[in-house]
Amino acid sequence: MTTYNRMVIIGVGLIGGSLGIVCREKGIVKEIVGIGRGKDNLIKARELGIINRYTDDIREAVSEADIVVLATPIGAMEEIAGKITPFLKDGTIVTDVGSVKGLLVERMEKILSPVKGGYSKRGMMFVGGHPIAGRERSGVEAASGDLFYNTRCILTPTDLTNKEALNKVKEIWEEAGASVTLIDPFIHDRIMAVVSHLPHIAAYSLVNAAMDISIDKHDIVSFSAGGFKDFTRIAASSSEMWRDICLLNSKDICQMIDKYQEELERIKEMIINRDGNALIERFERAKEYKNKVKSEKGYKIIKN
Amino acid sequence: MTTYNRMVIIGVGLIGGSLGIVCREKGIVKEIVGIGRGKDNLIKARELGIINRYTDDIREAVSEADIVVLATPIGAMEEIAGKITPFLKDGTIVTDVGSVKGLLVERMEKILSPVKGGYSKRGMMFVGGHPIAGRERSGVEAASGDLFYNTRCILTPTDLTNKEALNKVKEIWEEAGASVTLIDPFIHDRIMAVVSHLPHIAAYSLVNAAMDISIDKHDIVSFSAGGFKDFTRIAASSSEMWRDICLLNSKDICQMIDKYQEELERIKEMIINRDGNALIERFERAKEYKNKVKSEKGYKIIKN
Repeated sequence: MTTYNRMVIIGVGLIGGSLGIVCREKGIVKEIVGIGRGKDNLIKARELGIINRYTDDIREAVSEADIVVLATPIGAMEEIAGKITPFLKDGTIVTDVGSVKGLLVERMEKILSPVKGGYSKRGMMFVGGHPIAGRERSGVEAASGDLFYNTRCILTPTDLTNKEALNKVKEIWEEAGASVTLIDPFIHDRIMAVVSHLPHIAAYSLVNAAMDISIDKHDIVSFSAGGFKDFTRIAASSSEMWRDICLLNSKDICQMIDKYQEELERIKEMIINRDGNALIERFERAKEYKNKVKSEKGYKIIKN
Repeated sequence: MTTYNRMVIIGVGLIGGSLGIVCREKGIVKEIVGIGRGKDNLIKARELGIINRYTDDIREAVSEADIVVLATPIGAMEEIAGKITPFLKDGTIVTDVGSVKGLLVERMEKILSPVKGGYSKRGMMFVGGHPIAGRERSGVEAASGDLFYNTRCILTPTDLTNKEALNKVKEIWEEAGASVTLIDPFIHDRIMAVVSHLPHIAAYSLVNAAMDISIDKHDIVSFSAGGFKDFTRIAASSSEMWRDICLLNSKDICQMIDKYQEELERIKEMIINRDGNALIERFERAKEYKNKVKSEKGYKIIKN
């Protein structure tokens, strides 16, 4: 196992903090330096023993770093990459945990390419990553060393990516207990548009549609049954995060919304035409999918 | 507490079976007779002690019944009501547990009105009911005496409903631990279109839309994250039940699909226009709703 003298985590929240715990517990890094917007949060991270120290001196922190982990909201990543680039030493690995990859990876490679020592010679030392893990609670207090255990982590190397950097980032995620898959950044985004981005937009939209309904004097919320409760829970995710995801993966998401609307329209037509058999066929088709998801291996959702 | 000599349960599955257990355990009925399509299921119900006996002789079963509970799929209820009507004695209470009420109650009142003794004189002895409870597993094996504990049960009396019959049915559900609310049958359906019917159709549609996507050689299912998993679970409900619900509550459901489509279109426009603030506003609005659902009292989802 490769070990490192210094890891800098920028954005010490649930994901960044949990990765820090793994690296500390497994002895992967000697020193973890935290950087972030909220000082209280960084103090908390140090109290919890997740980071050794924190600083607001980006130059000092990253100039001697072996690896820099960007774990901020994806909307902030390009700006941060621009800030750290002038101070990175030759050979420092930069990786991120953002849930959108295509355009982000493309931009990160552009921003990080002028690093001294020359990424052009050795290949890009930036490795795009997306650990598929989460909890309902967010923030560093919810961080835990087992967050990534038995989950999947997608890494999105490009033709430019330095192979050694890729293997080292892969090794860290495997130490965290994740099963690592390598996928093209834009294909990653198309997959996520289906299994994550559309479901969240569907949930937000459904709850908003429900809120527009006022029926008699009854408070419909109090009659919420199973299905609706799941939607409200999904729709309670971070608004800022989902805004960023929508704007960065807009093309794939809009395509999926279109597909979704077509299917809703199809179901509505079946209802209007009172075509019970067609409804059964569509519902059964969706049902079979669950068994497929169930039988899939190497997959687990971590929940609080 | 009123007690009864004979209760007939038609359709001894999760809901009918659980109500049977409650009535037996609380000493509400002396004899429970089961009727149903599947003999194996009825044998099982007798083995489990949920029913005292079963029969396929509808005349014999219902002619001496004090109360008949219709717990079959809603698509079968009208036909069954037609079969039992000629044999009901004067004063027998008939109630159901169907998840659609408006048109169903209207039709049941028509079918059951010619019962001898005259519903016209004493008022309708039929009481529409909808216990909002369920489990992922269905069937009589999943039945349990605590299924309705701390849940809501909606009863949907009309102007015709006999008050005594209503109060007796109410009393039984309260014995089961449910909080009973009286709602107009058609308003019930509008509420359910929002909190239950649309969410299920949204889930079925989303899973179907996802199935139409084939990305490269990747099996997108294996990347399912939290949100999508919830949708596949909701979409694993009984296809027959949801066909019946769609056909019986078609008007309200189609209206909700329209509203949902409008909101999806709105979100899509915001994404296309890169209007981050508007997205935040919609997402935050949905998020607030969750807190409302959470703080609501007298409400609990029973899950396995």
